[in-house]
Amino acid sequence: MPFWAINVILYHRILVSPITILSKHLKGENLITINENYLKLKAGYLFPEISRRVSAFQKSNSNADVIRLGIGDVTLPLPPAVIEAFHRAVDEMADTQTFRGYGPEQGYEFLIQAIIENDYLSRNINISVNEIFISDGSKCDAGNIQEIFGLENIIAVTDPVYPVYVDTNVMAGRTGTGDDRGCYEKIVYLPCTPENHFTPSPPDQSVDLIYLCYPNNPTGATATRQDLTQWVEYARDQHALILFDAAYEAFITDPDIPHSIYEIPHAREVAIEFRSFSKTAGFTGTRCAYTVVPRELKAYTTENTAVEVNPIWNRRHTTKFNGVSYPVQAAAAATYTEQGKNEVRQLVDYYMENARIIRTSLAELGFTVFGGENAPYIWLKTPNGITSWQFFDKLLNDAHVVGTPGSGFGPAGEGFFRLSAFGDRQNVLEAMKRIKKKIV
Amino acid sequence: MPFWAINVILYHRILVSPITILSKHLKGENLITINENYLKLKAGYLFPEISRRVSAFQKSNSNADVIRLGIGDVTLPLPPAVIEAFHRAVDEMADTQTFRGYGPEQGYEFLIQAIIENDYLSRNINISVNEIFISDGSKCDAGNIQEIFGLENIIAVTDPVYPVYVDTNVMAGRTGTGDDRGCYEKIVYLPCTPENHFTPSPPDQSVDLIYLCYPNNPTGATATRQDLTQWVEYARDQHALILFDAAYEAFITDPDIPHSIYEIPHAREVAIEFRSFSKTAGFTGTRCAYTVVPRELKAYTTENTAVEVNPIWNRRHTTKFNGVSYPVQAAAAATYTEQGKNEVRQLVDYYMENARIIRTSLAELGFTVFGGENAPYIWLKTPNGITSWQFFDKLLNDAHVVGTPGSGFGPAGEGFFRLSAFGDRQNVLEAMKRIKKKIV
Repeated sequence: MPFWAINVILYHRILVSPITILSKHLKGENLITINENYLKLKAGYLFPEISRRVSAFQKSNSNADVIRLGIGDVTLPLPPAVIEAFHRAVDEMADTQTFRGYGPEQGYEFLIQAIIENDYLSRNINISVNEIFISDGSKCDAGNIQEIFGLENIIAVTDPVYPVYVDTNVMAGRTGTGDDRGCYEKIVYLPCTPENHFTPSPPDQSVDLIYLCYPNNPTGATATRQDLTQWVEYARDQHALILFDAAYEAFITDPDIPHSIYEIPHAREVAIEFRSFSKTAGFTGTRCAYTVVPRELKAYTTENTAVEVNPIWNRRHTTKFNGVSYPVQAAAAATYTEQGKNEVRQLVDYYMENARIIRTSLAELGFTVFGGENAPYIWLKTPNGITSWQFFDKLLNDAHVVGTPGSGFGPAGEGFFRLSAFGDRQNVLEAMKRIKKKIV
Repeated sequence: MPFWAINVILYHRILVSPITILSKHLKGENLITINENYLKLKAGYLFPEISRRVSAFQKSNSNADVIRLGIGDVTLPLPPAVIEAFHRAVDEMADTQTFRGYGPEQGYEFLIQAIIENDYLSRNINISVNEIFISDGSKCDAGNIQEIFGLENIIAVTDPVYPVYVDTNVMAGRTGTGDDRGCYEKIVYLPCTPENHFTPSPPDQSVDLIYLCYPNNPTGATATRQDLTQWVEYARDQHALILFDAAYEAFITDPDIPHSIYEIPHAREVAIEFRSFSKTAGFTGTRCAYTVVPRELKAYTTENTAVEVNPIWNRRHTTKFNGVSYPVQAAAAATYTEQGKNEVRQLVDYYMENARIIRTSLAELGFTVFGGENAPYIWLKTPNGITSWQFFDKLLNDAHVVGTPGSGFGPAGEGFFRLSAFGDRQNVLEAMKRIKKKIV
C-alpha cells in the first residue's frame, strides 16, 4: 500500500477522546500513558482528499474511464526467474531434509553475497557480509533506523519529501509540533526548486541526520557525483550522518550518475544506504530490501565517546526483527542470476519507456517537465501558475486522469504535480492523448 | 534464529571505542549522538557460553553425537495444505491479471476473517477486522508495541522471561542500568517459583505495562481462568495494560485453560494479545503472526486525557511496516482450511508426544519436572541442588545432550533447566536413554 493510504486510514481512525478522568479516583496510582508524540502527527489531508475527489467525480460520471498515474506501485508481475526460485524454495519447506526454520535475522549469506557481488563489487565498492542487513522493506528500514540515534539530533529533509522520514522522527519525539503546511519544529527543511535542480546543497547550519533520496521520489531528480561529494564532505566536517535512500537506483540511465553513495570517497565514514527489490523486481507485495551499515560509521555519546553504529543497528535488527521469509530471500537472490538480471532490466526498461512517453509528450505540449530520465517519476510545473490542486481538478474533470498534487509532499511542492511511470503502457498512451485533446 | 543467537552476535560485535574526540575541533557544532540506552544492554553471556562449551566439547570428542534439545525452533516441514496455497499464490504473482503489489499494511482481509472465525468466534470471542494486525512475527510485535506508550511507564515481567520484552524497553529508555544478574532498574520482576506454580500473582505495587506469556516460555506453565481474571482485574483497577503473548496457545491440551485472554470478561479493556503461526504451523522461517488491539483499550496523556490505543498502533504499523508478503499470507490462511487444521493438529500432536516422552521419562527417573503438558517446553529442577550450569555440563559431558540453563532466562531460573519438545522423535528417545544410563 502506498504511504498515502496510511493517511486515509489515519484520517478515519485516529480519535482522541476528550474524556478527562480524575487521577484522584485512582488512589494515587499512575495511569498507563500513551506516547504523546503520536498526537503531534498531522492527519495528512492530501490523500484522503484525492480519494474523496475521485469518488465524487466517479459518482457523477459513472461511465468515465479514470486512468490512475498517481500511485507509486508497480503493475508488471514478478519475472520468471524469480517465480521459479520462489517455487523451488517453497518445495524445500515441504521436506524435513531441506526445511528451514529460524534463519539469521540479518539474512542468508547466499543473498548477501549476491548483493555484494552484483550491486557493489561490480562498481568497485567493497562491502563486507556483516555490513548488510536484509529486511522486509525500505519503508521499515528508513522508519526504524532513527531508533538507534539520540533524540537530541537535528534532522534535515528535502522538501518535498517521502513522509515516512519525517513521521517516524515525530513519533520518536525528535521534533516539536507541526504547522498547517505539515512542517514540524526542529526539522530543517531543504527546499527543492528548479533553480537548484531539485537537489539542494548542504545547509549553512549544523544538522545531524540527513535523509537523502536519489533518484528522488517525488521529483525524479538525481544527485551528481559532485552533489554527493558536497554532502559527504559536509557530514564529515559536521560529524553528521547521511541516510541515503537508493530505492530507485536501477532507473538511472545516465552512466555518470552514482548508483550508490559509496561511490563517493569517504562515504563509508558517514552514510547508511537503503536499497529495495520493490520497484526494480516488482517486490512491492513480496517484500524484500536491505540496508548497508559500514563498520567505519561512528556516532557519539553525550560525553563525546565514539560508538560504532554497525553493532548497535545489529542489536536493534536482531532484537526487534526475526529475518525475512526464506522463500522470499531465495526469490530475491534469483534477481542476480543472468536470467534474473535480464528480466529485471526488461521491467525497468518498460517503466522507463512509459516515463519517456510521459515526459516527451508533455514537453511537446508545452509543459515544463522534470525527472523521468533517471527515475520513474515525472515532476511537472502546473501550467499558468495554477496551484497543484487546481491542476489536479482540471486533469481529473477534463481528461479523467489522476495524478498527485506536489503540495502533498511538502510546501515546496506547490505549483508542481507528480505522474508515475509504473502504469500499463496502453493507459499511459491514452492518458497522453487525453491531455493533448482536453488540457492544452 | 532463536533469540540467544542475538547475544552470540552481540557478544562478538558490540565494541564501544574509547576514543574521545574534542568538541572544540568542531567549531561548536553538535556531534551525531547514539541512543545511549543501547549501551545499557547486557551482552548476554549465557548463550555465547553455551556455544563455547558445546564447541569445546565437540573439539575434544569429535565422534560424540550431540543431541540438541535446547533451541525453540521447529523441525517438521510446512504442512501440505500450506505448501499448496503457497505455490498457488506464487503463481498469482507471475501473471499481470492476478499480480499483487502493495497490500494493506494491516494484512489481507481473507486472512483476518479466517483468524476471527477460527481463533476467536469458535471460542465465543468477538473481534473486528480493524482490531487485527497481521505482521511478520510475534518477536517484532512484542518488541515494537512498547513504542506507542510513554517512557514513564513502569514495566513488569515474569522472571524467568523471554528477553525481547526486557531488551526492547531498555533500548527505548524505560529502564535504568542493569546488574550482573541481568536485571534492570525500574523494571518490576515477578519471580516464578514452584510455590506459585510459575504463575505469579499481580504485585502489590502499581505497574503500567505487564508482559505475560501463557503457555509460558521457558517454564511451560499455564495460567488458569482464575489467574488471568486476577490480572484483568488488577489492570482495570490500576489503569494498567497487559501484553499477552499467546504464541504457544495451540499446545494447550487441558480444556479448562484459556487460549485467549479475551475469554476473561472485560479483558478487551486492558489487554493486547500476540499470536503466531511460527510454532503451530512451522512458520519460524516463513514469518507470519498477528496482534489484536481491541477498540476499548485506552491509554492516557500526562494530562489524564484518554486516547484510543488501536488507532495509535495502526499509525505505527502503517508508518513503519509495509505488510506481510502476499504468498506468505495466503500460506498462513491455508492453516484454517479443514485440511490445514488437521495437518496443524498433527504437527502439534507430534511435538506434544515428544513433550510427554521427555516429561514422563524424566519423572520416572526421579527428576522433578514442570511444564510439557500444555506447552512444548519441559522445565526441570536440577538434581541435588546443583546449579543450572553444573547440570548443563553434566548433561553435555556425560549424555552428549544440550539443553538450556534456566538461569539464562533470569535469576529465578537458577536451579532449573529447559528442554524443548521441538526435536526429532528418534533424537528425543535417544536423549532419554542416555540420561537414564549416564546421568541418573
